[in-house]
Amino acid sequence: MQRHEKTDFPVVETRRHLETGPIVLVTSGWRGETNIMTMGWHMMMQFSPALFGCYIWAGNHSYELIRRSRECVINVPTADMVDAVVAVGNSSGHSLDKFEAYGLTAAPAHHVQAPLIQECYASFECRLADDRQIDEYGLFIWEVVKGHVAATVSEPATLHYHGQGRFRVAGPMLDLSERFKPQNL
Amino acid sequence: MQRHEKTDFPVVETRRHLETGPIVLVTSGWRGETNIMTMGWHMMMQFSPALFGCYIWAGNHSYELIRRSRECVINVPTADMVDAVVAVGNSSGHSLDKFEAYGLTAAPAHHVQAPLIQECYASFECRLADDRQIDEYGLFIWEVVKGHVAATVSEPATLHYHGQGRFRVAGPMLDLSERFKPQNL
Repeated sequence: MQRHEKTDFPVVETRRHLETGPIVLVTSGWRGETNIMTMGWHMMMQFSPALFGCYIWAGNHSYELIRRSRECVINVPTADMVDAVVAVGNSSGHSLDKFEAYGLTAAPAHHVQAPLIQECYASFECRLADDRQIDEYGLFIWEVVKGHVAATVSEPATLHYHGQGRFRVAGPMLDLSERFKPQNL
Repeated sequence: MQRHEKTDFPVVETRRHLETGPIVLVTSGWRGETNIMTMGWHMMMQFSPALFGCYIWAGNHSYELIRRSRECVINVPTADMVDAVVAVGNSSGHSLDKFEAYGLTAAPAHHVQAPLIQECYASFECRLADDRQIDEYGLFIWEVVKGHVAATVSEPATLHYHGQGRFRVAGPMLDLSERFKPQNL
């Protein structure tokens, strides 16, 4: 796995990396403890402020860390990381340091306690914007407060979970921009 | 564009076609009027009953049809349909029959008034499960009540919107199922 040098990325353009629907690695940090979980149930909800919703199962070890800290980082992995992604998703942080166990490198975020994952080409720092749907739906509504993206990565081989232990890898880019109305771009 | 013969698909497995994050065509029907819109902000929310959330902008012509009927169909297009997908997303149903204009074929659904799109390989009939987040977030929470998927399509070339008029096409399938815990499959 390659570590990526990331630079600031405008949060209003978060969709370019999350709307395509990749599996993501969610990092959390609370009172010195950190953890990582995989997550595939998420959506953009607003451009500005940038809102992002996701479902987190209460049975995840990360759930309490995230709920208490009211922060997380959404990190986007690529296909070279698929072994780590699967390992993270099939283990519990209850008795394991997943960073150490699976060769992932934590880097400090700017605004939140949760760490960035250096091997991910994109990371988005989030603060909880609305906790009212957590009890009923496990739905966390986040404001993306800071984006970090590797400028060198233009068509990332993101992983898209299909269920049954299978992932689609993002393929070719189609550019249809000439057929869009300018206000829709 | 090819029309697909679809067969019943268990709603509990809806994730296999929507969790990967494809752009979808949402059909609506209300008092004899039908419409189609493109939509990329959506997520799975629960396996059973199958819940699915999506953001719909109040400025869309479909918004009122969907809100009043409390029903829709989520249709999944593939790359051979990209011209129609872009045309649907860059026009308004206010003064246009998008089915006729863009060569799409409506077929009756089983449980809802909104039609299926025959050219899409998968369609999911939905009934509104929770309208409480619509005013604040434009978030519709649906129960998927019926699934239709073409059995002949195994690795659909779904479209994943990147913004700026560009789409990623779903690429190769990676099978990591041997590394999953059985309960996680």
